[in-house]
Order: sequence, then structure tokens, then C-alpha cells
Amino acid sequence: MAHTDHLYSELVRLLREAALIGSCGSVLSWDEQTFMPGHGAAFRADQLGLLAGLAHERATSPGIGELLSELERSSDLGDADSDRVVNIREARRSFDRQTKLPRRLVEELSHTTTLSQQAWVSAREDSDFAAFLPWLEKMIGLKREEAAAVGYGDGVPYDALLDDYEPGMTAAEVQRVFTPLRDELVKLVAAIQHSSRRPNLEILSRHYPKTPQIVLAEGASKAIGFDFESGRIDESAHPFCSGFGPGDCRLTTRYNDHHFNSAFFGVLHESGHGIYEQGLPRDSFGTGIGQAASLGIHESQSRLWENFIGRSRSFWQYLFPTARSAFPKALGDVSLDEFCFAINDVRPSLIRVEADEVTYNLHIMLRFEIEQDLVSGKLKPADVPVAWNEKVTQYFGLAVPGDANGCLQDIHWSAGLLGYFPTYALGNMYAAQFYNAAKRDLGNVDDLCSRGDFKPLKAWLNEKIHRHGKRYRASRLVEIVTGESLSHLPLIAHLRGKYSELYGL
Amino acid sequence: MAHTDHLYSELVRLLREAALIGSCGSVLSWDEQTFMPGHGAAFRADQLGLLAGLAHERATSPGIGELLSELERSSDLGDADSDRVVNIREARRSFDRQTKLPRRLVEELSHTTTLSQQAWVSAREDSDFAAFLPWLEKMIGLKREEAAAVGYGDGVPYDALLDDYEPGMTAAEVQRVFTPLRDELVKLVAAIQHSSRRPNLEILSRHYPKTPQIVLAEGASKAIGFDFESGRIDESAHPFCSGFGPGDCRLTTRYNDHHFNSAFFGVLHESGHGIYEQGLPRDSFGTGIGQAASLGIHESQSRLWENFIGRSRSFWQYLFPTARSAFPKALGDVSLDEFCFAINDVRPSLIRVEADEVTYNLHIMLRFEIEQDLVSGKLKPADVPVAWNEKVTQYFGLAVPGDANGCLQDIHWSAGLLGYFPTYALGNMYAAQFYNAAKRDLGNVDDLCSRGDFKPLKAWLNEKIHRHGKRYRASRLVEIVTGESLSHLPLIAHLRGKYSELYGL
Repeated sequence: MAHTDHLYSELVRLLREAALIGSCGSVLSWDEQTFMPGHGAAFRADQLGLLAGLAHERATSPGIGELLSELERSSDLGDADSDRVVNIREARRSFDRQTKLPRRLVEELSHTTTLSQQAWVSAREDSDFAAFLPWLEKMIGLKREEAAAVGYGDGVPYDALLDDYEPGMTAAEVQRVFTPLRDELVKLVAAIQHSSRRPNLEILSRHYPKTPQIVLAEGASKAIGFDFESGRIDESAHPFCSGFGPGDCRLTTRYNDHHFNSAFFGVLHESGHGIYEQGLPRDSFGTGIGQAASLGIHESQSRLWENFIGRSRSFWQYLFPTARSAFPKALGDVSLDEFCFAINDVRPSLIRVEADEVTYNLHIMLRFEIEQDLVSGKLKPADVPVAWNEKVTQYFGLAVPGDANGCLQDIHWSAGLLGYFPTYALGNMYAAQFYNAAKRDLGNVDDLCSRGDFKPLKAWLNEKIHRHGKRYRASRLVEIVTGESLSHLPLIAHLRGKYSELYGL
Repeated sequence: MAHTDHLYSELVRLLREAALIGSCGSVLSWDEQTFMPGHGAAFRADQLGLLAGLAHERATSPGIGELLSELERSSDLGDADSDRVVNIREARRSFDRQTKLPRRLVEELSHTTTLSQQAWVSAREDSDFAAFLPWLEKMIGLKREEAAAVGYGDGVPYDALLDDYEPGMTAAEVQRVFTPLRDELVKLVAAIQHSSRRPNLEILSRHYPKTPQIVLAEGASKAIGFDFESGRIDESAHPFCSGFGPGDCRLTTRYNDHHFNSAFFGVLHESGHGIYEQGLPRDSFGTGIGQAASLGIHESQSRLWENFIGRSRSFWQYLFPTARSAFPKALGDVSLDEFCFAINDVRPSLIRVEADEVTYNLHIMLRFEIEQDLVSGKLKPADVPVAWNEKVTQYFGLAVPGDANGCLQDIHWSAGLLGYFPTYALGNMYAAQFYNAAKRDLGNVDDLCSRGDFKPLKAWLNEKIHRHGKRYRASRLVEIVTGESLSHLPLIAHLRGKYSELYGL
């Protein structure tokens, strides 16, 4: 056993070192998006390029491969869910994925991603799909190569891409839950559209000065459990959460003086991600147990706090008096019910990131369908706008006025993030399942929220989900925590219950 | 020649790579001191430790040594002041210094520095020299080892330490200028103390709200030429300037609502450093030509803007109306002359960082004398407080009430920065010499300042000093720019002229 211990310690040391280099890159990326002066961009790209190269070099070093092979031959590692076995499993997974890609492909992907994102920025500005098309074609080609290199067993190439973000998940499994979810959502959206009730949205675009917005949002973030001794919130053009490592997690948001939702719900969302990062076991940094289970599980944490808690009436029973004191002019004449209805407005729209809790998932399905067809070769990149616009009409009954508001709206494809979109909707489904389990275990969560007592829920999430890191695959984690496998039903039940009441369905 | 070109390009590539890693550490250190949440400290130490190790590994890689040896054998490199020859010379200097230190010593210095600084922080808090003494003893021992390993020709061990900060400078040369400077300063301080004139210091401790302080300081920084597209100013407990690399230089300061000088002159000082960093040739990053000539030259730039310009009457002819609008309550009843006298108050004091332009240099000499004796072994670390307090009485006529306000006040010795102090006073002398040369070349600099036109002076500094990086040793740079060798006379003439007028001597 002493020899195995030694090998394992050495493996952990190498993994930690690679992760530490990666974490230095995270600090530099965060700075790039928050504070870096404009003329620092070219030099920052040099710094980040070097760190990425060093991290890749370490993560794929033959030493790790040899240690893994030796360790995998040991018979006395422990049970399959033990820290050690999980960390070896995850190290193998990551090592294989990174070493299977030929160096030429890694470099071409990196290079193309940079140029393709630049092309996307100006193509979106000009709503000019033709300008982006060559880059999309190139990227799809490279991602198909990546899928072939990584391999996908009996599945489809898309699985290999999806697996990078949602380990163990397949396109077929996503399809199994998306199909009934879509049918139910389309019905729910139609019912809402037929309702005569409409919230007064004007109240959310009144003047909300920035300083009290910061105080309210940071106060809420702290209240739900984001630890400001181990993190902070700054401003950036695109909100994100970056967990540098133990004791340091950075969130960002953006403030709009005439749009209440943007910063407030953005902060709750990122705080959900941040609470997950802060809940990962400190001592396991750099290993599987110290990493989030999957992007879907990560998103479940942000959506749970943003939507299931943050858009609930009970949450605002607690916070509305504070909000009204912070914005006496904007909210002085607004009732709790008017406010809760306004922040839960549902309507078909063109832009994903502005979509409500109900229609959001349809945006995801549309993208999932198109990117599956792109990767399989069934859809040519040149035909994306037509396919996109048809689906928007089919799902939302809307016409797309231009590709900037259609297939050019998201950065993902230009950044090579094929297979990423489904994790957003998976996150919503996981969140609904976790929320039900939390209510089962904790009793009246609404009551706790209305008192502003979020500690039990945060502690439950820490205990049931966060502390395990990647111990269980997402699907198994859901089963262990909720007693049920992945299902669309809890999400649909949540949405149906909540919106039937608001819209009088 | 093609072969030499190839070798040289490869050398530059390796040097740049090592410098890039170092610059990533600079970003992380900056963040540590400005924005990092408290619980991130331990992890940050891990990140910085790894980066320092990687940078050292690269900077001392045998590949660099081999390239240097091959290049040094070439006969066709160019003249001694060409970029190429300078970069090879500086690479050799740095490579030798780093490879001469045994690994054991490097690690022990690094480890001791961390612990010793922690011990110093609490020893200073408790004014308990005995608690710091073992660390000082250990540090002096290690620095003597370092000096022996580096070597110092016909000089003294102290030279080897000084040379790290002020290449080519020796203790004897410092002594040559410090001795007459000290005699003159002691006379000037005595004359000022005998004057019946005293400024009204109360006006500087009135209420100066933070926001207009930021606006005034950043406005002045921009006016003198710090480029905010390539840098920024944030807050930290201890002000500093960190040039990450081309296009990105960060300054910090601290604001005190009841002390005008602290932030304003701190920002001018750091801006002087920042303008130097921003004036280094972008394309030479990582090589000698892309680096500051010495710490003394660096300090000359900060002192020139802070003191020669920033504390001049002509500067405030330009800025005082703006300052008065920014602080109508504090400055409404203050005249330009009262203000200029107050910011130029001279009086013996115990604390170096709060000292005025005249007595500051005496603080440096005191430290220079003590640390020389420590390194030579003439003074035992245990006897430092007695030696310190005697010199304070001798130079300032003051009694030291406790070591926190005496020999424990500075971080330098605990951080292993032996040989660093003289560069502060050298900077003041260089600044006086440069300032005279600028007036010779540009005509009436006072007139330019009173109009707020700092472009000619900044351009002159860029042209004469900044763009050369390490092309010339500090002493030669001074000769080339001013036509004179290092001398205390211009500084004394400046101080005597200025303070005779203010104090009616």
C-alpha cells in the first residue's frame, strides 16, 4: 500500500501543479474582463497563451500517463466512489481527452477560436451571416475532427463534444427529456399567451440608481450564502463566475440604471455558481473531487437561486421592503404582487439571454437541434439561418428580422463551444429536481425564504451536492440526491404551478 | 551572420518567455494587494510560488547559458551600445547572478523572507525588536552568503548586494557622494530650524473628501503624461507601481480624508515610475533594452515629478485653482503661497516615508551606514537599536521612543532588501541632475509647468532616458544626459535655493 500511496501522492502533486497554472490564467482572464486597460490586450494574449501552453504541457505530461497506468493496475485503491478512485478516474478521463487530440488540431482549434470570435463580433454587429460562414464551416470541421479523435463508442459524434461539458451524457439521453419538455412548454407558453393577465413591465425600467443596486444585489448574494471573505463581485461586459481556487471566487455583473432585472438576477445567478465553487472541498483542489460535477449541475445551482428562490413570492416577502427603501421613487407605489408578476413576465422573444424562465428552454432546444445536425453533417453551415428562422417561427411564432437577432446572437459556436447549450436546460431540470428534494428534506422552504433564512438550503446543497465534486456523474448524483432519475416532470410541474397562479390559467 | 541572428533570436525568445512568466506573477501580486479577498491568501501564495519557480527555472535554463557563450564568441555583434550587445550583456549579468546562487540558498532565502516578514509585522506592532532579532540575524547571514556567491571583485560584500538594484554602483561611490551631501543637508536643516517662518500645516489636515481627491490626483497624473489607456490607479495599503509589460502598468495609492499630501503626492510619485515603465520600448520586452536602467534611475523619475515639479510653485500656479474648486471648504481661504509653503514643510522626524524632501536623504544615509556595518560584520544585529537611535539623535536631534518608530519601521531588511536603501537618495541626486539638464535643453520649464504643459518635459524624459532601458549603466546615463558625473551638488543647489526662499534663509 505504501507504494500505491506514493504513486497517488505524486499524481495529485502533478495534477495540482497543472491546475495551479490554469488558475493563474483564470486570474489574468478575470482581470482582462474587469480592470485591464485597453492597450494591455495584446500583451495579455501573450501571457494567457503561454500559461495555456504550460498548463496543457503539464496536464498531458507522460509522467501523469505512467502514474495512471501504474495506479490502475493496483487492486487495493478503495471502493469506486472513494476520493482516490474518483480522482484517478477523472485524471484518466481528462488525460485521455487531452492526449487524444493531435497537437496540430489543438493549435488549429486555439488559433481558429481566436480569429473566429473576432469575425463573429463584427459579423453580429453588421448582422452579416455570410461574413461568419467561413469560420463556422471551419469550426464545425474542426469539432468533427475533435469528436473523431476523442471517440464516442456506439453513440454519435455529438456525444464526444457534449461529454466535455456534461460527462457521461449523450445526445440520445438529452433528446429523451427534451422531447416531452418541449411539448409541455409549447402548451404552457400558448396558455400564457391566451391569458388576459399581463404584468406591468414599466415598473422594472424605471430609474434604479447604481449604488443602491449594488447594495441590494450584494446584500442578497451574501444573504443566500456567497462568502465575501472568499470572493467578490465586480463589473464586466458579460457576467461570469470564475472560481480561481480555494478561498477565492470572483463574480461579475453589469448594472443598467433603467433595468432592474439585469444586475439583480444576474448576481443571484452568478452567486449560485459561486456558492457551488466555494462549497467544493478545499483540500481536493486540482483533482476530480475538487471540481464541479458538470456544467449542467453548475447551472442547476445558479438557476435554483436565481429562479426557484429569487423569483419566488416568498423570497420577495423577505426582500421587497428592503428593495422599496433602496428605490423609493421606483418602487414606492408598487405592491409586492405587482412586482412579483413583473419579474415573472413570460413572453416569446428572440434573444436567449433575455428570455424568461419558461421560454428559455425552447431557445436551448432550438440550438441543440441545429448543432446536432451541424455536427452530424445533416445541416450545412450555410443553411443555418433558414433552419434557425423556421424554428423560431415554429417555437415562438416570431419572425427573425436579421441574423444578429437570430443565429448570430450567441458567442458559443464561434468559440468552439459545440455541445454546451444543452447543459443550460439540463441545469433547469436538475434544479427543479433538487428543489423538490430540498423541500422533502427541509420542510417548508418557502417559509424559510420569506424569513430570509437561507442557511438550511445552502447547507443542504453543500452537503448533498457541492462537497462531492465530481464523485458521481451528474445523472447518478441526481438519483442519489432526489431518488429519481433525470426527468422533465419536476420542471414542468414547477412552471405549470407557478404560472397558472400568476396568469390565472 | 545568419547563424548569429538565429542564436540571438532564440535567446530573445527564451528571455521573453521567462519574463512573460514573471509578468503573470506581477498581475497576481497586484491583485493580491488591491482586490483579493482575505481568504484567498494561502492559495495565492501557492500560485505565486509556482510562478516564481517556473520563472527561475526558465531564467537559469542551460539553454540560455549555451546561447550566451556562443554569442559571446561572435565577433560581429555590433557596437557596445547597440541593442543586441546590450541585451546579451544584460542577459549574461542576470543569468550569472541567478546561476551563481546555490539552489539551497535560493530556497532558504525565499522561505526565510516569507517568515521573516511575518515576524517583522508583529514585532513592529509590538515594538519588540527582540522578537525580530533572530530573523534579522538569519537574514544578514544569508545575504552575506549571497554576496560571497555572487562575488564583488576588489570591493566589499555590500557591493554585490547593491549591484542587484543599481548595476555597477559600489558602496565606495555611494559614500563619495553621500558624505558631502550629508554635511550640506545637516547645515541646511539647521538653518531651516533656526528660521522664524513656519508653514500652517493645519490646512493640509482639513477634510478632503475622497472622490474629489481621486479626480484631482488622476487628473494630475494624466496631465503629466501617465497614459490611462495603458494603465490604471487603484488602492492598496502600500502604494506601488507595477509595470506588467507593454501597454499595461498599474499604480496604487491610498486615500486619507484628513491628509492631503498622502494620496496626491503618492500618485505623482507612482506616476513618475509609471511614465518610465510606459516609456520603455515595447518591442524589447523581456530584454535589457526593455528594462529600467536601475532602481536609482527609476526613483529619479518618480522624484522628479513628485518633488521637482509637483512641489514647485509653478506647478501649483497651474493646479491650485482646480484644487480649490475641488475642495472649496478646505482651500477656500488658503492662498497659493500658504499652500506651497505647507506642502514644503521641512522638519526632522522619525519616520522615513513621511519625511520631507530635505530630511529624507538623511534617513537613507542612516540606513546605508547601518546596513553596511551589518553586512561587513562590524555591527552585530543585536546592536542595531542602539546604533539606530544614536544616529537619529545625531542627524535629527530626536530621541526614538520605541523601535517601532526606529529600526523596525521599514519592511526592507525583513524582506532581504539589503543594499536597496541607497537607491532612494541616488534617485534624488539623479533627479536634480536630470532636471537641470532638462531646463538647459527645454528653456523655461517653470513657465511650461505654470501653464500645465508637461508634454515637452515628458517627451524629453522619454527621449533621453526611458527609451534606452538598460543600454547605459546609471552613472554613464547621467553623464550622457547631463554632461556631468553623479554629484550631490545639483540636489543641494536645488534644495538650498528653494528652501532659502521659503524660509527666508
